[in-house]
Amino acid sequence: MSAEALSPVTSTTSGIDAEQFRAIFRAHPAGVAVVTLHDGHRPVGFTATSVISVSAEPPLVAFSVSTGSSSWPALSASRQVVINFLADDQASLSARFAASGVDRFADGGWRPLPSGVPVLDGCSGWIEAAIHSRLPAADSRIVLVEAMAAWGTGRQPLVYRDRSYHKLIEYEI
Amino acid sequence: MSAEALSPVTSTTSGIDAEQFRAIFRAHPAGVAVVTLHDGHRPVGFTATSVISVSAEPPLVAFSVSTGSSSWPALSASRQVVINFLADDQASLSARFAASGVDRFADGGWRPLPSGVPVLDGCSGWIEAAIHSRLPAADSRIVLVEAMAAWGTGRQPLVYRDRSYHKLIEYEI
Repeated sequence: MSAEALSPVTSTTSGIDAEQFRAIFRAHPAGVAVVTLHDGHRPVGFTATSVISVSAEPPLVAFSVSTGSSSWPALSASRQVVINFLADDQASLSARFAASGVDRFADGGWRPLPSGVPVLDGCSGWIEAAIHSRLPAADSRIVLVEAMAAWGTGRQPLVYRDRSYHKLIEYEI
Repeated sequence: MSAEALSPVTSTTSGIDAEQFRAIFRAHPAGVAVVTLHDGHRPVGFTATSVISVSAEPPLVAFSVSTGSSSWPALSASRQVVINFLADDQASLSARFAASGVDRFADGGWRPLPSGVPVLDGCSGWIEAAIHSRLPAADSRIVLVEAMAAWGTGRQPLVYRDRSYHKLIEYEI
């Protein structure tokens, strides 16, 4: 790792404000995932639209999370997660795992793996992964994980953009 | 940055192979961007479906890139990039910036910023950003950048999934 990667991101010399920045990313579509884990006492999970493939060999995935997130204390101490890729009929599940003040697992619709990490029913696919590192980036972390197991169900995916849910229509170039 | 973030990702204890892993991410939809830069002699650019928002304050963005990419030598030495978010009529532009053996800028349709970094015409939005760090992850890098300027045009976005291009249909929960 080069020295530049070690300097914390704290300053901003940016000419744009946070609201301008958020507007650009609201307009950028993304598949929807729910990251789940187990904190030793109970299941934990949160909606994420920032899951990306980093490398296929080894199979590495990254996602970003705010350290202000209610799931961060559990995630900061966890060794494993499941990344549940939501299907196009799971918009309400996405909303539930993004809501505050609710027990996100109370309604069922999930099962624990042998590791205790929950897998959500009805997803388009999921990856069981070991956490490799949590890379600091201002008040957020880029969590880098290595996939240990993966399943795909062939269900169509859910897409989020501009504060609403979408399905896809294929078209030819 | 914690010590764990410093250990390079090289080993794999994974139970899945690269093709299984790729299949999961082929099924995961993503907005399409072209990352452009200038290597001091000529414009450089490549298609990326891994652009994520990391933090709004400061405005941080990340994307992953293989060090085997033809654009990596230029990107590894660059200080600035533009992230061009493609509009839903720009599938051919996406394909051009993912093709090998072609001059991706020969057909025009772009202009240089004062920094020399190209901006592509007709996008749904773009961000001019300073490169903060290039975080190692096996043979890839997670490039963390800070937005300096951003423009949105209101055009509808292009989505990539399962090796084809898509438009979005909004639907209610």
